[in-house]
Amino acid sequence: MTQSLRIGVAGLGTVGASVVRMIARRADALAQATGSAIRVTAVSSRDRGRDRGLDLAGVEWFDDAVALARSPDVDCVVELIGGAEGPAKAVVEAALASGKHVVTANKALLAHHGAALAQAAEAAGVALAFEASVAGGIPVVKALREGLPGNAVARVYGILNGTCNYILSRMEREGLTFEACLKDAQALGYAEADPTFDVEGFDTAHKLAILTSLAFGTRVDAEGVSVEGISRVQPLDLRMADELGFRIKLLGVAQATEAGIEQRVHPTMVPKSSAIAQVMGVTNAVTVDADAVGELTLIGPGAGGEATASAVVADIADVAAGLVRPAFGRPSAALRPPARAEMQRHEGGYYIRLTVHDRPGVAAGVAARMAEREISLESILQRRDERAAVHDPRGRSGEPVPLVLITYAATEGSIRAALDAIAGDGLLAESPQLIRIERE
Amino acid sequence: MTQSLRIGVAGLGTVGASVVRMIARRADALAQATGSAIRVTAVSSRDRGRDRGLDLAGVEWFDDAVALARSPDVDCVVELIGGAEGPAKAVVEAALASGKHVVTANKALLAHHGAALAQAAEAAGVALAFEASVAGGIPVVKALREGLPGNAVARVYGILNGTCNYILSRMEREGLTFEACLKDAQALGYAEADPTFDVEGFDTAHKLAILTSLAFGTRVDAEGVSVEGISRVQPLDLRMADELGFRIKLLGVAQATEAGIEQRVHPTMVPKSSAIAQVMGVTNAVTVDADAVGELTLIGPGAGGEATASAVVADIADVAAGLVRPAFGRPSAALRPPARAEMQRHEGGYYIRLTVHDRPGVAAGVAARMAEREISLESILQRRDERAAVHDPRGRSGEPVPLVLITYAATEGSIRAALDAIAGDGLLAESPQLIRIERE
Repeated sequence: MTQSLRIGVAGLGTVGASVVRMIARRADALAQATGSAIRVTAVSSRDRGRDRGLDLAGVEWFDDAVALARSPDVDCVVELIGGAEGPAKAVVEAALASGKHVVTANKALLAHHGAALAQAAEAAGVALAFEASVAGGIPVVKALREGLPGNAVARVYGILNGTCNYILSRMEREGLTFEACLKDAQALGYAEADPTFDVEGFDTAHKLAILTSLAFGTRVDAEGVSVEGISRVQPLDLRMADELGFRIKLLGVAQATEAGIEQRVHPTMVPKSSAIAQVMGVTNAVTVDADAVGELTLIGPGAGGEATASAVVADIADVAAGLVRPAFGRPSAALRPPARAEMQRHEGGYYIRLTVHDRPGVAAGVAARMAEREISLESILQRRDERAAVHDPRGRSGEPVPLVLITYAATEGSIRAALDAIAGDGLLAESPQLIRIERE
Repeated sequence: MTQSLRIGVAGLGTVGASVVRMIARRADALAQATGSAIRVTAVSSRDRGRDRGLDLAGVEWFDDAVALARSPDVDCVVELIGGAEGPAKAVVEAALASGKHVVTANKALLAHHGAALAQAAEAAGVALAFEASVAGGIPVVKALREGLPGNAVARVYGILNGTCNYILSRMEREGLTFEACLKDAQALGYAEADPTFDVEGFDTAHKLAILTSLAFGTRVDAEGVSVEGISRVQPLDLRMADELGFRIKLLGVAQATEAGIEQRVHPTMVPKSSAIAQVMGVTNAVTVDADAVGELTLIGPGAGGEATASAVVADIADVAAGLVRPAFGRPSAALRPPARAEMQRHEGGYYIRLTVHDRPGVAAGVAARMAEREISLESILQRRDERAAVHDPRGRSGEPVPLVLITYAATEGSIRAALDAIAGDGLLAESPQLIRIERE
């Protein structure tokens, strides 16, 4: 063996420390697999004093991560700082400008600057690898980039945020509210003190934007993702879903349509029998629908220091083996501009939970408004026994009760128009709940 | 673009025809992904006259596949003839000896000659790629070879034969016998006229031997696989499994133990809640347990022309992109000799269905024999109402009834010894049914 690859790790949090340990622990196996001796030669972090239980003897310490990225003693920079801007971006740009390979777990950076960074990597003739940025330890970037080149992808969708899946799983199993489950998730360290980024779907949107680019050969377009989180999902919706043969998951979905590519993140009803419906707790899963292979599903850990480090080290091994492929599966110049399909044109089944005044003719009135827009109903359920669960239960007659509709395929625009008409008729005691249905 | 890769396809059955069509259909995307123009320049098959609906204008026809493998106009030979010996082996050996890359879907060839062929490929500096040989369209070879280099694998197991999974799924759903479901599978083209190779587990064993080598870095050892098929599974076993919270799947399991590596193929009880239990019909699935990533499951189509061609074309794209890595993830010289762990030393839970004479004290006698060998029982079920389902229901008293035991972890050797003792006591009306339990 004559080759070697010198790694600089910028960011020594949980993942960074795992990466340093894993490279040492697996040194022999990595050398055999790649034909190259891989070793960490430089690290950088904000707090030099902290004890991470790492043996950093012989490893150069940089207070300035950008200086690490430019060091002549580093061949490959591993960026684990995080964030779309600031130091993380500076480090990656400096590394690429210095002709160094980059491995990163930074989904926000990729989602916002992926196309430009891929171009910079190409210009420098180096790798830009980001397996760890989506679905943690699941090798889904590799599967999409290298595993399916004979396929035209029709759709890719997945559970990409463990926090949300944990909360929805507990809400379903235990009948608890979103707020109660969020508190538990925070206590267990599954959710941040400010959970907005996770529970409102933005984290999923970043990951989805990366998957979309890989699956459809388009430039990353994070701004084109329609995003809706899980904070409005109620225990009643999970009970109704169960009764109707569904589970509710926060999915990121990218789908080729005639109008362009839909990218959407929203709570979704999935059939209980689907592979993705079985995925509970903090686990992640991604399903790819493609013309040749049909349906392919990958399930595994979406986060955690060791699982994420597993993906980082796989990228490092690819670099060490001399694998330099276009970051998003084709050269930057060949990436197509994103053709956004607007959500108004989305076509699919819908679960609609209305809170209506319990008066004669309400269901008929609702159904008539749906029919006007040629929306066919698969089922319509009225639950007077759920009265206690809804707000403002004042009078005995006319008090609010839930009315649940399941539609056949309809456009989002027509559904919204019908709901506006129903609201205009004065039938609603609350704004409606709308959850999209995704079938296999 | 200056590079090109000329493909010779040996074998134009369903998969071969799909490969030829896919390379033409995806020419632009493949060129973008790999930086190389991929085109089929030569084909070979037994029957030149057959209409395959392929446009073979400008493609050289070889009656002799070995001559195709040696043709100076071919850079990469795709072997789709099948079989461990004969023409398939001759073609692959001739291609490697001529310094050509080889892509194959041939699990039997790899299982029996994988180590030698990998060595020949290394000596020639060419690729030997076989994604399609295991689990059809699922990119599991890539995942194991390139996706998990930071991990020590503890266990890999999967549903690797669609025929068996189809039969077991129907037996479970419809309460049918093995024989009835096999007939249906044959009528639907899911099973061969001579189904032995599939239903007795040999096909699964070949695929498992390949996965074992990739997962543990050992030389392929197909002869070291302990093999048991599904023909002895009865509807009663599926009913009992259901009652006990399990499903029965034919699994291939490779597991690192202190005694070496266990490779075993057998009907297996898996918890209903596991990802692998959800896999029904002809679908395949593979789960990897590894130290860093934890549990990773890949689910997808195990067979079919297009799905298999998808895997073949992914390998071709890797070759076109210049990826030449050791076939089994590390150089041949670094592959360890297979250290077989004998089945007698296998340790796990067991489902044991005895057919006993319905007399007082039988259950106690059975339990005593188990206790002698320090086998702990998790549950013991006697089902007098299943009397009709078992053989020889002659007398009213002492007639045969099933007695089902679920054990905690015990060695295969101790279980066998206990069953021999029970048989020696004259308690059994039939030879016992024994199904191993595999937990997540």
